[in-house]
Amino acid sequence: MPNKTKNPVITLTTDFGLQDHYVACMKGVILQIAPDARILDVTHEIEPHNILGGAFVLGQLLDWFPPDTIHIVVVDPGVGTSRRVIAARYDGQTIIAPDNGIVSFAHQTHQVEAACTVTNPRVRLSTVSNTFHGRDVMAPAAAHLAMGLALVDLGQLTDHLEILAVARPKPVGVRALEGEIVHIDRFGNLLSNIGRQDVAGVSTGGRQVAVAVDGVDLGPLQQTYADATAGDALALMGGSGFLEIAVRLGSAREKLSAAVGAKVIVREN
Amino acid sequence: MPNKTKNPVITLTTDFGLQDHYVACMKGVILQIAPDARILDVTHEIEPHNILGGAFVLGQLLDWFPPDTIHIVVVDPGVGTSRRVIAARYDGQTIIAPDNGIVSFAHQTHQVEAACTVTNPRVRLSTVSNTFHGRDVMAPAAAHLAMGLALVDLGQLTDHLEILAVARPKPVGVRALEGEIVHIDRFGNLLSNIGRQDVAGVSTGGRQVAVAVDGVDLGPLQQTYADATAGDALALMGGSGFLEIAVRLGSAREKLSAAVGAKVIVREN
Amino acid sequence: MPNKTKNPVITLTTDFGLQDHYVACMKGVILQIAPDARILDVTHEIEPHNILGGAFVLGQLLDWFPPDTIHIVVVDPGVGTSRRVIAARYDGQTIIAPDNGIVSFAHQTHQVEAACTVTNPRVRLSTVSNTFHGRDVMAPAAAHLAMGLALVDLGQLTDHLEILAVARPKPVGVRALEGEIVHIDRFGNLLSNIGRQDVAGVSTGGRQVAVAVDGVDLGPLQQTYADATAGDALALMGGSGFLEIAVRLGSAREKLSAAVGAKVIVREN
Repeated sequence: MPNKTKNPVITLTTDFGLQDHYVACMKGVILQIAPDARILDVTHEIEPHNILGGAFVLGQLLDWFPPDTIHIVVVDPGVGTSRRVIAARYDGQTIIAPDNGIVSFAHQTHQVEAACTVTNPRVRLSTVSNTFHGRDVMAPAAAHLAMGLALVDLGQLTDHLEILAVARPKPVGVRALEGEIVHIDRFGNLLSNIGRQDVAGVSTGGRQVAVAVDGVDLGPLQQTYADATAGDALALMGGSGFLEIAVRLGSAREKLSAAVGAKVIVREN
Repeated sequence: MPNKTKNPVITLTTDFGLQDHYVACMKGVILQIAPDARILDVTHEIEPHNILGGAFVLGQLLDWFPPDTIHIVVVDPGVGTSRRVIAARYDGQTIIAPDNGIVSFAHQTHQVEAACTVTNPRVRLSTVSNTFHGRDVMAPAAAHLAMGLALVDLGQLTDHLEILAVARPKPVGVRALEGEIVHIDRFGNLLSNIGRQDVAGVSTGGRQVAVAVDGVDLGPLQQTYADATAGDALALMGGSGFLEIAVRLGSAREKLSAAVGAKVIVREN
Repeated sequence: MPNKTKNPVITLTTDFGLQDHYVACMKGVILQIAPDARILDVTHEIEPHNILGGAFVLGQLLDWFPPDTIHIVVVDPGVGTSRRVIAARYDGQTIIAPDNGIVSFAHQTHQVEAACTVTNPRVRLSTVSNTFHGRDVMAPAAAHLAMGLALVDLGQLTDHLEILAVARPKPVGVRALEGEIVHIDRFGNLLSNIGRQDVAGVSTGGRQVAVAVDGVDLGPLQQTYADATAGDALALMGGSGFLEIAVRLGSAREKLSAAVGAKVIVREN
């Protein structure tokens, strides 16, 4: 007898957009198998085929969702090839995704508990297309998990997951480090890969640090977006726990002409 | 005593966008009547007033949703005129929409079981505006159906539904046919009206077929998106069962400058 | 014992967009506290930092949602400063939002029943960031309300809410009034602040009124969008109860080059 979760939550993160029927078809498939599943859209606006873009968003989810949440993530340029579909458990939550590195950010900050391939024919649709495994493989597998199927019943346990190199901050000189911008959000805020502990490692006894991006000096770390005057740039620790560069009531992306990959220097002030 | 569905599913497909309050007002109306209804957004990004665009998306849904699903579809340039609002049952699912041809794709591939007008004053809001029947007529009708009301209690049975001409592939010469592009998706993939059986009809004994769009030769049908090198175009059978033209890791819409209506030729190779 | 609502509904209105993880994190926080909560997206496309834009959408919701609905509204350029987070009850529904005037439209048309600050540490996350109170303060407060916590237990009762000046129509000459455009929707329809009763006040004994926007004469009020020929502008009473200017099968925003703030004159014909 499977151990069915009450109100199982299934989240969806894809690069499908919402203009087409693709996401809806996945939801329909889920509801046919798991009528009580609660389906939540995370985003469908991952840039098409941008695996690291999807990996970043996925990496931000695990800290905030309840145990037993199932996250389907579909950025899948290799659909229909030999790339595997995998299910991996982190902190009691399960990620179902193509094995193309999309778990890389989550994997960096959370401990994988178990992983397996999604190969059991009983958890796929009876006909599997070559072009839409989100609907034909991942959605039904998630729905079966939501209905209480054990992870290991999805396929074969595996101890290998494809992990992409995710940039980490590195020391530069004395009491300084260099990180980079890994995501730009809707407001044009630049999110870096520099965490609280990275910043703490630069600061002696809580002294202030100064921040620069692409050679532009932003002064000391601030506390809130409102600590700059309108139109001015500032650096602060963002809500996801990473150093972030913003423009008060404006867009840092536009003002600083910055892109993903821009270098960020933090040094003791 | 109405035969209430457990967890009734109501989907929404509109040209309203999500920037305004319109979709939310429909959801609020549904929840006032059917507090247990599960409301799923299909898309609200149908091009404004594009009835065939909405019809295409609706036509892709029926194969994937559970029995008793109710699909509200609002692309309604004639709102407030004499055009009817109808409820039509196909394969155990019910479509509630303006009677302007938006069921045309669904009607081509599925059997209508019953249809009626939505005219019963008891299933409308007490005040019906001239500009927003999605909220005032279709949402409450769907919610009453979800609560177990019978289709025939929505209004009068009708044996006429407005059906628009939907292009079908036609033979051209020996072992060749001409179809056309009917939808372009978020990836820039070109979806045609040429189904598996159409392709099978061109191929003798499973021989390969070759595809051309707007006079550009795409070579034989491939199996997966990854069967072309990055930036190259290919044709394959897409996940919706129709011949589709894609560019590996790119946009066929951009590379081929193609639009809805572009001619697609399939011939024996 | 708290008085838990069955199927509590929590709606979300933000300027976060849907490309990032922010909205999903709020949903995860809600579900950890209130697993049965029904979370509905209203819109996440409020223009960044546009408080009046969010206020307009919020003002359209209260008439359509069930009692006990909780509306979280996050357009919060002052996050992390001394601006308060408040919970205000209108018509049995509760708004949780920064106290920056975002309730201004709702406040104009509905009676506030009670309001309090959201300051109780037990209804916040254990760590509150300076940059994301939607996730750390408003989402958990809403979830606790959904679980049956009383409004007054969120913090301290308050009899002051920040209210922004919302333009109201004013008389100009005899049997004429001047209002303005307060919102432009996805279709390019121009929504004014002129309500049914404002129009009735101009018309003697139900006589027709004529409308002009930015000096362009639109003729008498029409009944439906279809009362103009394709491409022509018209004025009519929109589904939200306000005078609206539209272009048949087109965009009034484009045709009339109109913007929020454009003056609208209604006079007896």
